[in-house]
Amino acid sequence: MNLSEYFPVWNKLTPEHQRLIADSVMERTVEKGAMIHRGGDDCAGLVLIKSGQLRAYMLSEEGREVTLYRLFDYDICLFTASCIMSSIQFEIFIEAEKDTEILVIPPYIYKNIMEQSAACANYTNEIMATRFSDVMWLVEQVMWKSMDKRLASFLVEESRIEGTDKLALTHEKIANHMGTAREVVTRMLKYFQSEEMVVLSRGYVEITDAEALEQLAE
Amino acid sequence: MNLSEYFPVWNKLTPEHQRLIADSVMERTVEKGAMIHRGGDDCAGLVLIKSGQLRAYMLSEEGREVTLYRLFDYDICLFTASCIMSSIQFEIFIEAEKDTEILVIPPYIYKNIMEQSAACANYTNEIMATRFSDVMWLVEQVMWKSMDKRLASFLVEESRIEGTDKLALTHEKIANHMGTAREVVTRMLKYFQSEEMVVLSRGYVEITDAEALEQLAE
Repeated sequence: MNLSEYFPVWNKLTPEHQRLIADSVMERTVEKGAMIHRGGDDCAGLVLIKSGQLRAYMLSEEGREVTLYRLFDYDICLFTASCIMSSIQFEIFIEAEKDTEILVIPPYIYKNIMEQSAACANYTNEIMATRFSDVMWLVEQVMWKSMDKRLASFLVEESRIEGTDKLALTHEKIANHMGTAREVVTRMLKYFQSEEMVVLSRGYVEITDAEALEQLAE
Repeated sequence: MNLSEYFPVWNKLTPEHQRLIADSVMERTVEKGAMIHRGGDDCAGLVLIKSGQLRAYMLSEEGREVTLYRLFDYDICLFTASCIMSSIQFEIFIEAEKDTEILVIPPYIYKNIMEQSAACANYTNEIMATRFSDVMWLVEQVMWKSMDKRLASFLVEESRIEGTDKLALTHEKIANHMGTAREVVTRMLKYFQSEEMVVLSRGYVEITDAEALEQLAE
């Protein structure tokens, strides 16, 4: 297993730290739909994504969801190791959106190395800053963008990720991404359909005018 | 100047790093209303707050504001040194809400030390995680809480910070904190007044039933 490929700071670690990781890292396959982090005391470790797709989201007391960001091949998931940093005072949930191959470095091993290696600690900083930037983007969207623009932007993004114009998405699922009610999504999608930007069918949203959606998203 | 008081990781630094900071740190007084960070390429350095109050906020293209968090005595402002981390891809603005005494460690000095000292890098991590937690709290508020609860919660918090029930706040200023329109704040405050929770006068909101406001905020 070539750890330097999935863990960019690898070459800056001491041979001893490299050995600690190599001896403890676990390779796992997570099936589509499985949870890999459920907030609270969950702390599997640092997750390196070989291939697949994860979704990080927030959950309200009433069970409503909103997507914070997605992680793809070569991304690193820090919050599955949230117990290593006492100042992380929030709960996030992470699920596999596709079958995902991951490498997991146990949290106590990672914490130990981070405490000794400035390179590793600084790399961790950069991961956190990247996720922070993702969440700030979300704040911007939620604060200043109208729901129609956010929905258009979500559909364009989804089509880019999936590489298809025919998206297998229920209105419920879209609402969970956007942190809104299903009815709001349904109303907006029907409006998009009347404007001939999408065609709706059971369990699917098909983009028929990507250009118009992109313009709306701007 | 006792740096260990304002920079908790001080005692874990090498004498050389301590000297680097002691030789370069600048003491400044920032007047109420002054900007200490305007997003973009602004990069004054790591700001340690001796006394006073700073407000970090986000600005929309149309000039609307929303408060992200506040910083008080002994807090540390990391984003005034955002240039030291390339993954910080967002713009925030920081202003003094009161006359504030600060210590500023130049960004290149701090970056240099962080690259060598795991203790310093991990401490920086904890600062970032704290701000991240503040912003996640905001996301939660904005996503799941109605505007009346958010306004009640803001007034209660403001009264705690200022140590008074008579708050010198215009409706405009409250709207800028909450990222909403002035009209929305005015309408809500009038409702609070009709419920006898506040009394409004020019430039002031006086809390007359703190308990009812706190209950609403829950």
